[in-house]
Amino acid sequence: MNIILNRKVETGMIKENNKAIQDDYPDDFAWCYGCGRLNDEGIHVKTYWEDDLTISYIQPDKKYTALPGFVYGGFLASFIDCHGTGSASLALHRKNGHKPGDGVEPPRFVTASLHVDYLMPTPQGVQLKAIGQVEEIHPKKFKVMIQVFASDLHVANAEVVAVVMPKSFLKS
Amino acid sequence: MNIILNRKVETGMIKENNKAIQDDYPDDFAWCYGCGRLNDEGIHVKTYWEDDLTISYIQPDKKYTALPGFVYGGFLASFIDCHGTGSASLALHRKNGHKPGDGVEPPRFVTASLHVDYLMPTPQGVQLKAIGQVEEIHPKKFKVMIQVFASDLHVANAEVVAVVMPKSFLKS
Repeated sequence: MNIILNRKVETGMIKENNKAIQDDYPDDFAWCYGCGRLNDEGIHVKTYWEDDLTISYIQPDKKYTALPGFVYGGFLASFIDCHGTGSASLALHRKNGHKPGDGVEPPRFVTASLHVDYLMPTPQGVQLKAIGQVEEIHPKKFKVMIQVFASDLHVANAEVVAVVMPKSFLKS
Repeated sequence: MNIILNRKVETGMIKENNKAIQDDYPDDFAWCYGCGRLNDEGIHVKTYWEDDLTISYIQPDKKYTALPGFVYGGFLASFIDCHGTGSASLALHRKNGHKPGDGVEPPRFVTASLHVDYLMPTPQGVQLKAIGQVEEIHPKKFKVMIQVFASDLHVANAEVVAVVMPKSFLKS
């Protein structure tokens, strides 16, 4: 997988006044195990703009073990999945002239496909960072190229294709 | 993704005398959130032979929600991940002349890459089934082509490339 990021993103925390797209999802979209603020048992991925790239940070709970000392690959896939849909939502929201926190409900996306290349074992006990670059491939379909770091270790490359949520996902 | 399964596998339960590969993993490999019998908080994927195909079943807990009523895509990715490594382990174990339950420790695999195509929303409240077909692409590298069903609904296609666990994964 060929992922080209425009520039190096420094390890660090989100700027204080930056808002996550997931905080603006409507309530019916806020129960996701990966990124729903209303799912008390979930992992609460939050995704932000950092200039033209998208960023999520997470500190995996120790239960998400592969082998003792290493993070479970399915946890990384989940982190990547919600970083991908969050990044797509950020991108379409920006295209529509909006940004998180401006009071306008962002578009909701679901994952069409997820690809992860695991580059090395991911150590536990350090913060993970996902960096995304979003490309529109159709007005309702976005591709997000992602790199994941564990502290300074580049542990995974990934690609998520996200589509605007079809009506079949809503019960009423 | 082009997945060809040799034959239709009926929905159902594992035959009573069939043993899961994960039950034979050594203790240091039994802490995985996805398939470790020693991880009390994990999801306990178990993978079996059914003739020349591999099968896993799972009943997702309700917390693994995408939107209310639908299973979280990251949960499906986790189920697929461990079904993939379990299937690869079954295949190499069989190639070496062994089967689960015969008292010989099976080979351990880790995921090199994971690809999931989500075909439709996955309803909650029904058992999921993963069916795998394993192909050896190198003596230490196996590709597993996977179909996932929720009851009779074909909800995902996937491919896992699994490699024999490198020594760097073991702490001692």
